[in-house]
Formats: sequence, C-alpha cells, structure tokens
Amino acid sequence: MQPNRLTLTEARAAIAEGSITSEDLVRACLARIAEREPAVRAFAAVNAEGALAAARNADKALLLSDGPLGPLHGIPVGIKDVIDTADLPTEHNSIIYKGFRPGQDAACVATLRAAGAIVLGKTETIEFAAHGRNAVTRNPRDLSRTPGGSSSGSAAAVADQMIPVALGTQTGGSLIRPASFCGIFGMKPTFGTVSTEGAKRFSSSLDTIGWYTRSLEDLALITEVFEVSDASLPPPPPLHSVKLAWCRTPYWDRATAGMQATFEAAVAALRSAGATLTELDLGEAFADVNDLKERIMRAEGRVAFLNLQRTVPHLLSPGIRARMERTQDRLLLSALDRAALLRTEFDRVAAPFDAVITPAATGIAPEGLSFAGDPIFNGMWTLLHVPCITLPLLEESGLPVGLQLVGPRYNDGKILAAAATVWGILNSPDLDSLIRR
Amino acid sequence: MQPNRLTLTEARAAIAEGSITSEDLVRACLARIAEREPAVRAFAAVNAEGALAAARNADKALLLSDGPLGPLHGIPVGIKDVIDTADLPTEHNSIIYKGFRPGQDAACVATLRAAGAIVLGKTETIEFAAHGRNAVTRNPRDLSRTPGGSSSGSAAAVADQMIPVALGTQTGGSLIRPASFCGIFGMKPTFGTVSTEGAKRFSSSLDTIGWYTRSLEDLALITEVFEVSDASLPPPPPLHSVKLAWCRTPYWDRATAGMQATFEAAVAALRSAGATLTELDLGEAFADVNDLKERIMRAEGRVAFLNLQRTVPHLLSPGIRARMERTQDRLLLSALDRAALLRTEFDRVAAPFDAVITPAATGIAPEGLSFAGDPIFNGMWTLLHVPCITLPLLEESGLPVGLQLVGPRYNDGKILAAAATVWGILNSPDLDSLIRR
Repeated sequence: MQPNRLTLTEARAAIAEGSITSEDLVRACLARIAEREPAVRAFAAVNAEGALAAARNADKALLLSDGPLGPLHGIPVGIKDVIDTADLPTEHNSIIYKGFRPGQDAACVATLRAAGAIVLGKTETIEFAAHGRNAVTRNPRDLSRTPGGSSSGSAAAVADQMIPVALGTQTGGSLIRPASFCGIFGMKPTFGTVSTEGAKRFSSSLDTIGWYTRSLEDLALITEVFEVSDASLPPPPPLHSVKLAWCRTPYWDRATAGMQATFEAAVAALRSAGATLTELDLGEAFADVNDLKERIMRAEGRVAFLNLQRTVPHLLSPGIRARMERTQDRLLLSALDRAALLRTEFDRVAAPFDAVITPAATGIAPEGLSFAGDPIFNGMWTLLHVPCITLPLLEESGLPVGLQLVGPRYNDGKILAAAATVWGILNSPDLDSLIRR
Repeated sequence: MQPNRLTLTEARAAIAEGSITSEDLVRACLARIAEREPAVRAFAAVNAEGALAAARNADKALLLSDGPLGPLHGIPVGIKDVIDTADLPTEHNSIIYKGFRPGQDAACVATLRAAGAIVLGKTETIEFAAHGRNAVTRNPRDLSRTPGGSSSGSAAAVADQMIPVALGTQTGGSLIRPASFCGIFGMKPTFGTVSTEGAKRFSSSLDTIGWYTRSLEDLALITEVFEVSDASLPPPPPLHSVKLAWCRTPYWDRATAGMQATFEAAVAALRSAGATLTELDLGEAFADVNDLKERIMRAEGRVAFLNLQRTVPHLLSPGIRARMERTQDRLLLSALDRAALLRTEFDRVAAPFDAVITPAATGIAPEGLSFAGDPIFNGMWTLLHVPCITLPLLEESGLPVGLQLVGPRYNDGKILAAAATVWGILNSPDLDSLIRR
C-alpha cells in the first residue's frame, strides 16, 4: 500500500518494524499533496524540505536508538492555520496575518513534536476559526462541496490521504462537522484537557483543540499523547456490556431526511446486533442550549477581537465583527451560570451510559464553498464541554455523514472504547446494506 | 512636579494641555529608572530608545491632530514579562525563554497601544507567573522586603514612580497582593473581560489580566480602555447612599494582628463617617473555596505546562512541576462545578451591596525575597471571577497594606465608584490618625 494511505497506527508500526521509513511516508504524503492539492486546496503552507529533513533525522534516530521512541516518531501531521508553529507562518486566513511568523510552537504543537511528530504543513481555515473569509478548500469526496469549517483543510487533508493526522479546533462545530462531511474520524476532547495556548482565541470558554484521523485507534493514540483522560484506553467492551443511549437533541428537525434515516438505521443496526439502546430525551431544560452557546460565543468574541477591532477594523471581515457582541452583563452571566448547571445536569443524565449516540451534522456537505454547513448538532456539546467523537458512515447519495458519540466530561477514554465497539458493528460488511449504502 | 510623579490622569491632562510632552514624561520615567533600578530591579527589559521615539511621534501627532487622540496618548506603560510584546523579549523569568522575541503584541498590549500607550519596558515576574524562580525585584517601600509576586516588577515600578501604569496578571493573588505590599492601587477585573491571548497560560479558568496605578481615576481609565464594564464609571456616590459590606473571609485567622487592626480601624472609620456597613459572613458553603482554587489551578497547570514538561523538563523549576498535578477527574469536576455554583451564590449574597470590603493580604510584605507572600486573601476571589480593587492604607510599622473591595461579577464600574467614595473617607487628612499611622 502507498504509505500515505496507511493510518497513523499502521504507519507507526511500519516505521517501527522498518518496512517503511519516515522519509518514505513523508515523500508519499508530499506526492499525494502534489497530485491532489490543485483540486482540494487543503494546505495554507507545506514545509516539504523541513519535513523531509526531520524525517531523515527521525529515521537516523530510529537506527541509533536502543530505547523506546516517541509514540508519533516520524509521523507527519497537519496543523490548522490558527495554531502557531515555529517553522511556518500562521495566517488565520486573515489578510492581517499574511506571512506572519510567530516564532514558537503553540503548546499543542510542541507536545506533538515532543512525541516525535513532524509538522508537514498548515491547513486552511475559516478566518480566525470564527467567521468571515471561508477556506478555499474543497471536499475531497465531492469537489463541488464544502469540507465544512472551520477546520476545513485539516479534515480534507486527512480524508484525502494527504496526511494521517491533523489538528483542528472547535468553538461551535468546527471539528466534528468537517469530519462528518469528509467521512473521517474526529474528536473534540473534554474542554480544558488540551492547552489552547498559541491557538487563536475566539471564545475562551468554548475553544477546544481536537484531531482528525482515518481510524479509531489513531484517535486513541493522540488522546494518549495529550494525556487527556485519567484512564488509559480500555479494550473495546463486548456489545452486550456496552450501555448506549441515543439522543435526537432539541434540534432533530434541522437534520435532513437523509441524516435522520441514516441515524435511525444506525440505531436499528446496533439494536439488531444486540445492543441495549435507551432514548435520552434532554427535555425542556436543554431547549435553549444553542442560544446560550451563541450568546457566550459572541460576548467572548467581542473580548477576543477587541484588539483587532481597535487596530485594524477595516481588515476584519464583517462576519467577524458580527460575532463581536456587547451582551448585557446580566444576560451573559445568566448564560454562563446556566451553562455551568447544564454541564452538571448532562453529566448526570449521561452517567448511566458508556456513550450517547447523536448526529454529527444536519446532513451531507452542502454544495459550493460559500456555506460551510450548520453547526447545530455540535455547538451544544461544545458548550457542555463534553468529549465528542465522530465515526464516518455513508449516506444514501454516497456522501458521508457522521455518527457522533458523546458522554460526560472526562469520559474520553470510555467513549473511545464504546466507539470501538459501535464501529465494530456499524463497519461490519454484513451491515453494509443497511448503513453504508 | 517631576513628570514621573504624576498619576496617569494627571500626566494625560498635562500632555493634552501642553504643559509637558510625552517625551518629557518618558525621559522623567527613564531618569527615575536609572536612579532607582539598581536597588529596586523592577524591569526585565527597558526599551529607552523605542519609547523615546514613540513619545516624539506622539508629541508630533498631538501637534498635528485636530480631533481626539487615544485615552492613553503618549503615556508610558510597563508590561509584566509573561505578556508578549512585539518590540521587546518575553522571558517569563524562565531560562527556557531567555532572549525570546514573540514578534507580536499580546491582545491586551495591542489594545493599550491602540489607545496611544507607549510600552516602556517589561517588568519582572515569578517564573511563568506561577512558581519557581522568584523575581529579583525589591519592595520600593522597604528594600529588604519582597514586593509580592508574581506581578512583582509591575507593582514596584508603579509604586516607585518609575512608570504611571503597568499590567499584571492574577491566577492566585498576583495582582492584588503586590499592590497591597507596595502601597498602590490595583485592579483585577471580572474574569473574561480582558483577553489573555498572548499572556502565559497557567490556569485557564483563573488567569486574569489587571493593572496598577497610583490613583483610583487611573484604574477607572484603564478599565474604560478595555471596555470592561457595561456601565461607564458613575461619579462617586455620597457615603450615606453607598451600601457596604465587610467580610473577614474564611481565612481571617491567617491575617496578622496588624492587618486585622488596620482593617477593623478602616471599617470603624467608615462607620463613624456615616457609612452603613453590614458584616457579610460567607459561612460554611465557602469554607473550602481556597482548596477548590488550588485543585483547579494545579490540574489546569498540568495541562498548561505539559509541553514544557515534555520538551525541557530539566529547565522547569521544581516549583512549577509541583504545580502540575494529575487530579482525579471526579475531584476536578466537583471543584469546577462547585466553583460555578459558588460564583452564582456569591453574586447573590453580594448583590445588595455596592462593594464588599475585605483584606487585600495577610499583612505587610514579608522580609527577604525568598517568600513573595501568602495569596490566601486573593485566591478565593480569583476563583469566584469577581472584580477586585485594592486601595493603599498604611499599617502601624509604616509599611502598606491594602483594603480590598470586591463585588458581584461584572460590577466593575459599581465597585470603582464605591471605591472612590471609600477612598474619599479613608484618605481624608482627619482620619490619618486612625488609619494612616
């Protein structure tokens, strides 16, 4: 197999056993980028020479070493271009930052490098991962469609086998929605578990770093690199011992008929395979959870972008300025306090389950690049600070939608394990006729 | 008067009316620094040439302008050396960052510059504003004592009339305690009202940017520059219409006898001047508020310093590593959730009052530089996210302690107004015998 098609876990094993070198892997990724980038446009910048040099060093280190190397030794990664990197510009898809070189790695990038990863490039984003200028990236599953935003380039690059793993960020639905549209695995870990220092600030109580891969094992590996969860990843429990809930959310009617059908087919498939599935109705208490998220996001956005509004207002897109809102203090406080209570409440109602299954997006990726899709099935979970994982399914039209698994805060390891069990069922060839049409 | 002795508000008026230039002011600050810095050591770096050039530009702009200029036009400021500046190194008092130039301003620095301020220098800090290496700064009121930490240099520079205003940060008690020890005005605004982007991360749900000045009007002016509060600052209300509470906090027995006496004398003085003062007993619900703060700070510190622990562990002080703690998820969650409830609860019990008066520190500055003082009278307010202002009083021994005013979240404007009324009484020459001994 071409090395760029390997998952992270496969590539890592291949490097460790010597069947490929890190240089082979980086070269294969660069070749794929050369072939596909004119159509997909996932990257804001690629550091081909630097990555090859780092790969050769990694290969030498492997030959010389007699101890364990980092868990990502020699693995190329993509970094969303709102996250600082010492060796590449960070441009935020903003003309204000054209060519800007921050001169140091964001905390999360430093942690990846310390694990042995090689930064291959910066991936396209919506302006400041907020709003305004959309990414130029196209969905590799259908070039006429958006890959979703704002982690547009990261999702597209991983889906298109340009790179095995990439970092994104989520403030509304910027990680999970593109994973759903591009048909890959994505994870937003529990809020606060990964430092966002050195990533552009939008909403300080929502911004979360997360990652994309092409396998669930890969998600678990990155999760371990960041020491996200107390528990190390347990083996996938047998289906009969996994307690699942399914949740339509207060926004079910915003899902397309296709998404609704795919989601219900997945629930039915799990049930017919022997899973216990309880419907979780969040009820009235959660009815305005998305409104709370919007209110907090815009009020915090005002604080986050105040400096740019003061210094270069004419260089900020109207979409950014529209997300800077002077919210009345009492309305902001009530949103912050209600959000805190809803976090506790969701943890309580979700505690009996290993994971709660819910749609990852309203449906397949919209056509065109002007609308990056609706984050309505994501923002509420971002507000609740809970871990979210999405698994790629295929919808009727042959385009992907995701099945999202969420759970109480800090249950990242538990939902990863449950996701493995669920994926074992839904990815089974027997069920292809039902789910993966 | 020497320009460096002017308060910010006075200096601003003097520049606007042409009685001094910004260059005069910057030169006077530089002269004061030249004279005192060998003893006080407040600055990690001074940009004399850059500041003078900026001052000359500010003076030209004033001559040429026919409209209003920024509210800080031509005013030199000091920036705590954990906050990024485009034109000076940011060293965090860490050997890891020796000579490091971030190449862009932190959001708060950009906002100050957009208001017309001139960055005169970076001020000394405790390593990463967390722990580890202490600042070399001495307390200008008594060179044998600490100025407090971690905003050591900012407080000392303002107190010693080297500069009229400086930025600090508070995660435990790093703003208010040094103001108390150095005898100046200090403010920690409501959490979340000022972007901390570009300031070193320690604890993402506690880190707060704030400021030091030598007058209360100056605090209000900076608060306006950052658009902190909904309400613009009202005029100080008459004493009889100000509703005050006083609060010993659960930690009263950690205050020195001197602090207790000064604090009670201040309460008595306010009462005899006609103030209505209610004792606010926070009771059992708040008994462990400092423990919650410590637990959250250390758990978030683990996330914040993970990259340095992975890349350069031998270059991190043991004090930093001791503040990186893997807290059990359930203990961290209960701390986060209880903190959220206590925020609502404190807002509720404090709502009837214009401000709650409480000690700013346990007592006067400790001797020596090895212990920067106890933050016990600060950490709980940091956890509660409430605005805190400290007014300088004088203790028996002739060394300062602060009177701290706190209030519900987002009541920054209201407690500033109440502080002006309180200060009008406590700073009255008639009461000198009682308070300012």
